[in-house]
Amino acid sequence: MYFVAIMGGGPAGYTAGAELAKNGKSVIVFEKEELGGTCLNVGCIPTKTLLYSAKQFCNAQSEKYGIKAENVAFDWDKMQQRKDKIIRKLRAGVKQQLTNCMVIKGEATVVERTDDKVVIACNGEQYTAEKLLICTGSSNFVPPIDGIENNPNVWDSTAALQAKELPQSIAIIGGGVIGMEFATLFAELGVEVSVVEFMPNILPNIDEQITNLLKEKYQKQGIHFYLQNKVIAINENTLTIENNEGTTTTLTADKILLSVGRRPNLNGLENLGLKINKGIEVDDFMRTNLPNVYAVGDVTNKIMLAHVATQQAEIAAKSMLNEPTIPFGECVIPSVVYTNPEIATVGITEQTANQLGGYIIKSIPMSFSGRFVAENEGENGVCKVIFEEKTQIIKGVHLFGNVSSEIIATATMAIQQKMTIEQLKQIVFPHPTVSEIIKECL
Amino acid sequence: MYFVAIMGGGPAGYTAGAELAKNGKSVIVFEKEELGGTCLNVGCIPTKTLLYSAKQFCNAQSEKYGIKAENVAFDWDKMQQRKDKIIRKLRAGVKQQLTNCMVIKGEATVVERTDDKVVIACNGEQYTAEKLLICTGSSNFVPPIDGIENNPNVWDSTAALQAKELPQSIAIIGGGVIGMEFATLFAELGVEVSVVEFMPNILPNIDEQITNLLKEKYQKQGIHFYLQNKVIAINENTLTIENNEGTTTTLTADKILLSVGRRPNLNGLENLGLKINKGIEVDDFMRTNLPNVYAVGDVTNKIMLAHVATQQAEIAAKSMLNEPTIPFGECVIPSVVYTNPEIATVGITEQTANQLGGYIIKSIPMSFSGRFVAENEGENGVCKVIFEEKTQIIKGVHLFGNVSSEIIATATMAIQQKMTIEQLKQIVFPHPTVSEIIKECL
Repeated sequence: MYFVAIMGGGPAGYTAGAELAKNGKSVIVFEKEELGGTCLNVGCIPTKTLLYSAKQFCNAQSEKYGIKAENVAFDWDKMQQRKDKIIRKLRAGVKQQLTNCMVIKGEATVVERTDDKVVIACNGEQYTAEKLLICTGSSNFVPPIDGIENNPNVWDSTAALQAKELPQSIAIIGGGVIGMEFATLFAELGVEVSVVEFMPNILPNIDEQITNLLKEKYQKQGIHFYLQNKVIAINENTLTIENNEGTTTTLTADKILLSVGRRPNLNGLENLGLKINKGIEVDDFMRTNLPNVYAVGDVTNKIMLAHVATQQAEIAAKSMLNEPTIPFGECVIPSVVYTNPEIATVGITEQTANQLGGYIIKSIPMSFSGRFVAENEGENGVCKVIFEEKTQIIKGVHLFGNVSSEIIATATMAIQQKMTIEQLKQIVFPHPTVSEIIKECL
Repeated sequence: MYFVAIMGGGPAGYTAGAELAKNGKSVIVFEKEELGGTCLNVGCIPTKTLLYSAKQFCNAQSEKYGIKAENVAFDWDKMQQRKDKIIRKLRAGVKQQLTNCMVIKGEATVVERTDDKVVIACNGEQYTAEKLLICTGSSNFVPPIDGIENNPNVWDSTAALQAKELPQSIAIIGGGVIGMEFATLFAELGVEVSVVEFMPNILPNIDEQITNLLKEKYQKQGIHFYLQNKVIAINENTLTIENNEGTTTTLTADKILLSVGRRPNLNGLENLGLKINKGIEVDDFMRTNLPNVYAVGDVTNKIMLAHVATQQAEIAAKSMLNEPTIPFGECVIPSVVYTNPEIATVGITEQTANQLGGYIIKSIPMSFSGRFVAENEGENGVCKVIFEEKTQIIKGVHLFGNVSSEIIATATMAIQQKMTIEQLKQIVFPHPTVSEIIKECL
């Protein structure tokens, strides 16, 4: 009997598996597709790999830095090959992390569960474990729109990443993180991009000043935004969209990318007796309502980010080992949007701070950083720091500009450690870096 | 009578000036050249600006990311123009920070000092202040080598940054930070580079594993290293160097770059009664032996880095205002070398940890980070975290790989906050970023 059976070999599954095995526990991991899950195989990693190539393509064409080049071209096939190579390499790394776990490739089903035992069937065999960790992830959501099903012109993110060739134009349904990252990729490679978004702005949960700056920049680059518009029908490669005043328009593009969110993979888990409300309900220690069943990652429908899944997996592992751990509710979660420029945020937004009252908001342009100016010719950016007036404790940091993604960890640490602005000012940031901007902002 | 007279308008001078003026104090700043000091005008900023162009030149030639370009060329004049434009822009920013200070362009001399008054002469006028802040910076050191003086083939860093045209080959004397950054710049632009270093390795204070990795990479790229060699004579553009066994060789290059360190600018301060030992001696609150005289930055000969000068300036300002401040000795100082890949380090080195004993050293390749792999095709890197065995408190982090410079602030914060590895593990790092590597390393 295994100590734990893990359903799903994504970031959550392999993190928990490796951690528990390291602690001497016997672990069995079931993965129906490839180790690494959505993130590694059809999510973060392939997107970032292609985005980096696209960025290099833009940079090579730019003469802003005193460099000239002729006939700059990208080779989509080579970009894809590189992406696949990197996925394989990182997947091998994940496999290595699971050296001391039993890994089964196949679809697992729970056939029996009592409070001290779980029996799982996979590929015609049965496996028994004391505990069960569910981290089956999520799938692209397909909304019930006329003409969407079996339409070869409609891609989800997975199909877009594996496209044999680029379309000349693409309409992206959904201006959230995934939609905007693909908008960046396609626009940088010369594809004509339109974005249809139901909400009044793209990236609804991000600081409004930042999303407006991004939108303006992308509009200048030729991306068309149809905000407060919903898609009511698709006919071959033509969308019928309706705005909030009830006016309909049509929109034609070679391909249509559907990025309206993801839904937890709950298939086969319905009869287990789990409390489910959109996702599997868990407490701060990743325990479900069933004593020996834990759930982490996208399947809990909390925040669908790989680093959340990883953190939850670490917490679940500690829970199973009866070791002390930070409760998930106390974890400060950063998020990054890999547009160009990048957006990185953590903590409360200006909008929330204003609603709540009692906060001070400081904001400066990124051009206050010498390195930003040196490496971002003609670009705009912003750094915003929010702290509580009474305690002076930092509560939110919002960055727009490259390379915000690599800097937001510093802000995350400051917030997690409940640092005051005085404490932050005592930190020596290296010069010249963009990271200095956080201190400069105060 | 001014509250304070500041000699030197570099990072230290303008930081202290702006801070004191913000606190309602009357401030006069003397700058004999340009506001912004060495860092902005002939140091960090121009170097990083040119280095970024050089990096773009390399990237545009590379086909590693699926991008092709023909006839890739750099335009040194345009690179220089951009550099000058950025310096002007940032200098305007410094000027604006000093809006509420009196700024005098000219060489200042102290003509009288008592414990409650300092009289300064500049451009034929006299100015009186209660306190004096000395931040006159440093200058390139010219060692007494035969044939070095008045030799038009010998550049210092300032001359190299302002070169009208690039040489075909350059010999760099001194493999420290400045030498290696110029080696990077010139080599990336196709100049044949040799580095002569007296010590057994380049970048003597940096983690040895990292400097070895850099050296190997640069050797493969064609840079010649003459380690444990000293220059004994220069004849026009030929160096005579002697190794530690006494064997001499000659070495010819179009230009010779001298980067063997910098010395505090003490000129005109000799008779003030200051305690001087190489630099002006100061305590942890930047006080000299004279009650109303403070000194900060390169002139103190502590650590010649702009961010050290800035931190010291903040401490000096608080000292003058009798406000509580962190003592300089308690500040954790990161440092960055803008080679390609970058090096960034903070805290104790592996070598020191091994000498002292009681430390645990963890190290992993940068390729454990998915983003690093996605954006650094074919590159190698390392992340090393050092913590005290007994307390589990993090004491050192050493990074090799892009973009370490932007990540080291996170490590600096962790060390400054005396975080344990358990506390660091609780921080959620965004995925996929290179910054995750610090947590992954544990």
